[in-house]
Amino acid sequence: MRETQIVDLVRKLARTGPPHKEVVQGIGDDCAILRPAPHQDFLFTCDVTLEDRHFTLDTHTAADIGHKALARSLSDLAAMGAEPVFCLVSLAIPERLANVWVQGFYKGLLSLAAKQGMTLAGGDLARFNKVVADLVCCGKVPEGQAILRSGAKPGDRIYVTGELGASAHGLATRLGKAWRRHVRPEPRVEAGIALRRLGVSAGMDLSDGLSLDLRRLCLESKVRADIDSDLPIARAATLEEALHGGEDYELLFTASPKTNVPEKIGVLPITAIGFIRTGTPGRVLFKGRPLPPKGFDHFG
Amino acid sequence: MRETQIVDLVRKLARTGPPHKEVVQGIGDDCAILRPAPHQDFLFTCDVTLEDRHFTLDTHTAADIGHKALARSLSDLAAMGAEPVFCLVSLAIPERLANVWVQGFYKGLLSLAAKQGMTLAGGDLARFNKVVADLVCCGKVPEGQAILRSGAKPGDRIYVTGELGASAHGLATRLGKAWRRHVRPEPRVEAGIALRRLGVSAGMDLSDGLSLDLRRLCLESKVRADIDSDLPIARAATLEEALHGGEDYELLFTASPKTNVPEKIGVLPITAIGFIRTGTPGRVLFKGRPLPPKGFDHFG
Repeated sequence: MRETQIVDLVRKLARTGPPHKEVVQGIGDDCAILRPAPHQDFLFTCDVTLEDRHFTLDTHTAADIGHKALARSLSDLAAMGAEPVFCLVSLAIPERLANVWVQGFYKGLLSLAAKQGMTLAGGDLARFNKVVADLVCCGKVPEGQAILRSGAKPGDRIYVTGELGASAHGLATRLGKAWRRHVRPEPRVEAGIALRRLGVSAGMDLSDGLSLDLRRLCLESKVRADIDSDLPIARAATLEEALHGGEDYELLFTASPKTNVPEKIGVLPITAIGFIRTGTPGRVLFKGRPLPPKGFDHFG
Repeated sequence: MRETQIVDLVRKLARTGPPHKEVVQGIGDDCAILRPAPHQDFLFTCDVTLEDRHFTLDTHTAADIGHKALARSLSDLAAMGAEPVFCLVSLAIPERLANVWVQGFYKGLLSLAAKQGMTLAGGDLARFNKVVADLVCCGKVPEGQAILRSGAKPGDRIYVTGELGASAHGLATRLGKAWRRHVRPEPRVEAGIALRRLGVSAGMDLSDGLSLDLRRLCLESKVRADIDSDLPIARAATLEEALHGGEDYELLFTASPKTNVPEKIGVLPITAIGFIRTGTPGRVLFKGRPLPPKGFDHFG
């Protein structure tokens, strides 16, 4: 399949997705064009997904990889409470992968994009010895209302959505629901939008493990944290997996005691796990003991 | 160097760049935030630059690679006449590359970004067995004024900026000024903005060779093209290199005979090379004979 054929294919597949009135030019020119609405902020994030680093071709279907590549980037929009608008994808693939693989990748990606009301607006294509997918996501929030990492205040409660450790447990066992969670993570877009409307004080997504990500949130907010309650650990996962396991893509957030945080958003449970305190920025205690930031360091 | 150290380094380096009032949140959170000005369109493009595909570590310094990765993406903004606003970079690098390499890469990238008035607003980092850099660029134009590929009309003249074939000749010989053009391409941002203000009818950048890129422009505009004048061939380059060689990153554009196209924009020469005609969409004649689209197909 030549490049023009792939571009035609993707253009056709992408047309089935939801249109966005802000995206006035999609696939087919040198750039995508966004015509912004007034009083809105637009958010941008990119995440690179690499063969043999984030997935293997043996264990993930083409559609799994398309889904996961977009899910990782969508999770960053969810973290800041944004409504998805459009995405771009740079894709490099080995020559040995057949056309059906390329179609499967875009179908997996576009199926998640459609579910989240997002347009595929452009991208880049190249041949390479391994699969590389870089996903750029754009989302929107009302002006000034994005949930930042830097807003946590001493006295705020700390919460997480869903259950922790499923993805790490899935990766370790390759079994059942936990493996499915690892292969097809569900970005918490709906929950992120609800939390932004609720007026939470700070938030981020759990991509590299609670211990490391909570430390990052505390560093940005110049506070420390006490985890003093039981964690919502996924079925069969260990405490270690829940504390340090990466790729859960749940949301970690803080809210003032005055904020009325519900027990669930849709069917997704919300659990209070501790408090923000004054003290050494970035320091995290778990049931009274220092919690080392053992999560996934991309350069470790 | 751990991930947090690299993020700190990049944050520090990026702060020396020009601030953009539209970019209200840069590096350090889950997303970058753009607060758009009214009556402006924002343009987005991404381009992936791959070790042993677009460069080798033997022939390109870290700074060359940072420069080139950004230049390729900036050239797409130039093609549409946009003023650069911000960029994001996803970077994957092998463990064996030293800290000084990482610094060199960002310095090369940020030096070009600063020259073009662009902020580095975020990105992603990963370890991989090869260097991969995906650059996302955002630019702006007054509402509805981006130069599209689809605007060429029969009777319009066809023009190119600069000289053709230098990059292909440089790659073939690895010598002198032509090699320098290959390693450090100069995106024609200033010329693109000038052409947009002039009201040219269509345009794109020459990344994959005149024969293939002119065909693409004609396909989008549903017209054919006659190249009937001598091409501005770079010193020592061959006609073949000028017609089919990739990575010149000059601009190809069309303008109505009523448009007063200057002979130069700054010091950059502009050359009329032919005319847009009615006929089979995408067909290109060179001095009366069909020109095969032999340029660089990323999947050929």
